[in-house]
Amino acid sequence: AISDFLNQQNISDLAEIIEQNEERELGIFQHLSIHRAASLFKILEHSNQKRVIKDLPPVKSAELLNAMQPDDRTDFLEDLPNEVVRELVKTLTPEERKITLSLLGYPENSVGRLMTPDYVYVHEYNTVAEVIDIIRHVGKDTETIDVIYVINDHGELLDDIRIREFILAHPDKKVSEMMDGRFIELNVNDDQEKANEVFKMNNRVALPVVDDYNVLLGIVTIDDVLWVANEEFSEDIQKIGGAEALDQPYLETPFFGLIKKRVGWLIILFLSEMLTATAMAYYNDELAKVIVLTNFIPLIMSSGGNSGSQASSLIIQAMALGEVTLADWWRVMRREILSGFVLGAILGCIGFMRISLWSMLMHHGIMTDIYGLHWFLIALSVSFSLVGVVLWGSFAGSMLPILLKKLGADPASSSAPFVATLVDVTGLIIFFNVALFFLKGNGL
Amino acid sequence: AISDFLNQQNISDLAEIIEQNEERELGIFQHLSIHRAASLFKILEHSNQKRVIKDLPPVKSAELLNAMQPDDRTDFLEDLPNEVVRELVKTLTPEERKITLSLLGYPENSVGRLMTPDYVYVHEYNTVAEVIDIIRHVGKDTETIDVIYVINDHGELLDDIRIREFILAHPDKKVSEMMDGRFIELNVNDDQEKANEVFKMNNRVALPVVDDYNVLLGIVTIDDVLWVANEEFSEDIQKIGGAEALDQPYLETPFFGLIKKRVGWLIILFLSEMLTATAMAYYNDELAKVIVLTNFIPLIMSSGGNSGSQASSLIIQAMALGEVTLADWWRVMRREILSGFVLGAILGCIGFMRISLWSMLMHHGIMTDIYGLHWFLIALSVSFSLVGVVLWGSFAGSMLPILLKKLGADPASSSAPFVATLVDVTGLIIFFNVALFFLKGNGL
Ligand SMILES: [Mg+2]
Ligand SMILES: [Mg+2]
Ligand SMILES: [Mg+2]
Ligand SMILES: [Mg+2]
Ligand SMILES: [Mg+2]
Ligand SMILES: [Mg+2]
Ligand SMILES: [Mg+2]
Ligand SMILES: [Mg+2]
Ligand SMILES: [Mg+2]
Ligand SMILES: [Mg+2]
Ligand SMILES: [Mg+2]
Ligand SMILES: [Mg+2]
Ligand SMILES: [Mg+2]
Repeated sequence: AISDFLNQQNISDLAEIIEQNEERELGIFQHLSIHRAASLFKILEHSNQKRVIKDLPPVKSAELLNAMQPDDRTDFLEDLPNEVVRELVKTLTPEERKITLSLLGYPENSVGRLMTPDYVYVHEYNTVAEVIDIIRHVGKDTETIDVIYVINDHGELLDDIRIREFILAHPDKKVSEMMDGRFIELNVNDDQEKANEVFKMNNRVALPVVDDYNVLLGIVTIDDVLWVANEEFSEDIQKIGGAEALDQPYLETPFFGLIKKRVGWLIILFLSEMLTATAMAYYNDELAKVIVLTNFIPLIMSSGGNSGSQASSLIIQAMALGEVTLADWWRVMRREILSGFVLGAILGCIGFMRISLWSMLMHHGIMTDIYGLHWFLIALSVSFSLVGVVLWGSFAGSMLPILLKKLGADPASSSAPFVATLVDVTGLIIFFNVALFFLKGNGL
Repeated sequence: AISDFLNQQNISDLAEIIEQNEERELGIFQHLSIHRAASLFKILEHSNQKRVIKDLPPVKSAELLNAMQPDDRTDFLEDLPNEVVRELVKTLTPEERKITLSLLGYPENSVGRLMTPDYVYVHEYNTVAEVIDIIRHVGKDTETIDVIYVINDHGELLDDIRIREFILAHPDKKVSEMMDGRFIELNVNDDQEKANEVFKMNNRVALPVVDDYNVLLGIVTIDDVLWVANEEFSEDIQKIGGAEALDQPYLETPFFGLIKKRVGWLIILFLSEMLTATAMAYYNDELAKVIVLTNFIPLIMSSGGNSGSQASSLIIQAMALGEVTLADWWRVMRREILSGFVLGAILGCIGFMRISLWSMLMHHGIMTDIYGLHWFLIALSVSFSLVGVVLWGSFAGSMLPILLKKLGADPASSSAPFVATLVDVTGLIIFFNVALFFLKGNGL
């Protein structure tokens, strides 16, 4: 009865029950048909997956692992420690073990890690009737029969044909007559972000994966690419905000886990930001003479920071979608220097007007006069500093993600706060030197 | 010959040619079969789409619009000005016009705007042979036959069945025998982000869309959801960085378009950041007495900013994936106040040690003594301020996106720089008051 009830539910509903009541987990997995248990397992959070495998009786968890799609199994195993993977792989049948080890052999974040070898292939000389027979023989087995692949005797990919076309075709028709010779393939070593792009630009539910010699190795299905897209972007947003990527939903991450993911970058940024205190100390004598200059420090620093984080998030996003590549660095730099100049000039003008206006009010006794006689030179210092700082912010903000990528690091990795810190320190130095230039001998 | 060549290419290759050579655009569209032209049009950038429709001869552009999938047509039209939409809709056949107007009638970002009414439905009492006949009759028409929907005589949805199951079934079998009564549906008024979530959690390539009375209105396919996911996240990242969402790839956005998307927020933030100058002016007399206090302003402000942007991007990302909802505000607030306290205390300790260490070095004549006798009170002021500022940053950073959402605005919208500005202004006030508390009578 409980099995009946469970088999009536959608797996997404069962996943929700498990999220809310962890103790129901084992009961659900033990009463579900093994095929549905595997589908449910796939959509659970990684922490829940680990617990299920650990807590189920060994026989049952082996059965579950064997029942999983090879690609879903890779996705689960790749985030586990090596020792654990080794133990779990032992519970697989020889056939599944071979598949799994070969999939795990592809580099992290490569298309190979998304691939499943469960696809249906036919030959050019087959008839439609034969193809339908092959499909029947392979059986109801999962998603992998939406597209049929045509290969030659060397295993090389010749074409892909949607299953529906076989329904519409006459049984005597030859596969060769149905081929259009047009197919889109992924290379097994391609980055997963490439897969996202190719699926977006080609109306397919599955894409074949080949090696460098065009030999068909497996397929990737669009549902798994949707997961990848979601995960990639979540990671990017978390990294842009200056935290390490969480492996679990925010509210389910344990409190100290959350602290651990955040404190590292905060400390690094704090230590580098200490340079501002060191840099400023050099100017204390001058600052003491024209104390009003200190009032503009936050304004100038934050303008640099804001323009820097604009530039870096635009470039990170454009690189994530493949719109900007390393080769474009020169075009990006030119654009950002020019944009930074124009944006800085606009803010500089506003800043100049603000100081002039206040100074006028002070002059007429409406406000306490804190600028004094040098208001014009102070206004010039602030305005020119704004141009310099915003230009520098846009430049640094756009180039840092490109540089990080060039160095093989993740461009999203803390780019934004890193840029902010860089721009803060240098922004102060720009400001004080511009002020020295204008005010030296006139108050400084 | 040119038609032959073009029809051999994948649409993604043609899209690339067009991106590189805009002048080839018209030639390509005029020589391509209308069905492929429609597929190509769908994947072009919106700016290119507009140009194609404008530049093609009226007859040809009408033909193209009529050949498009209804959902792709909605996606193109929804971003155009009303007058243009009205003109273009006139070129549609009465049937397509009716469909398009009804789809455009659904709210922006709703599932209705993603929906296509091209689906295949059957009845419980049909046999498999009849279903195959219906499929043949509907023809090769596009993606929409991957899943077949079972409805009753009131048009209410009863089940969804994958087309492959009909291939595997005996022709005499009744549809009712193949039904499992389990289906997952979207409501036409659901947000598109919901669709993303439902597709992720359920292994489907298409989902049926129903109204509040469970009447089947259309379907949404996973390929379009992959587009939505990509666009949503790009928008979020750009907004987090404090720019308006670009409608085009970064490098293709015209220079002044790019400036326009960035300058608005920069000016708003600049104007609000001016409050820091106003706030600081109140403390100038005190600052002049202990000028070294100014040296810590950037450090304290940036620590608040960094913790704020961590918190806001974590929450934005969690809300985008539906992991955090408005109802969770209280749990989030509790977590962030506690996290902020712990993180602030850690930074505060580091800050205290840094100042003590420097002061020792100064005491021994290794560095110029700028702290003087009050180094201990200065260290206390900085440390306690750090706790307060980081706590406040985490609190404000996490609550602002929730507040924005509650007010019906987009939580991603410039949350991060907005939080930074808020935290900068208030951070200064916290710092100066803590310093006043410790140093009043001892140097201040
Ligand atoms: Mg993975
Ligand atoms: Mg997973
Ligand atoms: Mg083909
Ligand atoms: Mg489609
Ligand atoms: Mg899969
Ligand atoms: Mg990434
Ligand atoms: Mg749209
Ligand atoms: Mg579009
Ligand atoms: Mg069903
Ligand atoms: Mg799947
Ligand atoms: Mg579509
Ligand atoms: Mg959004
Ligand atoms: Mg800042």
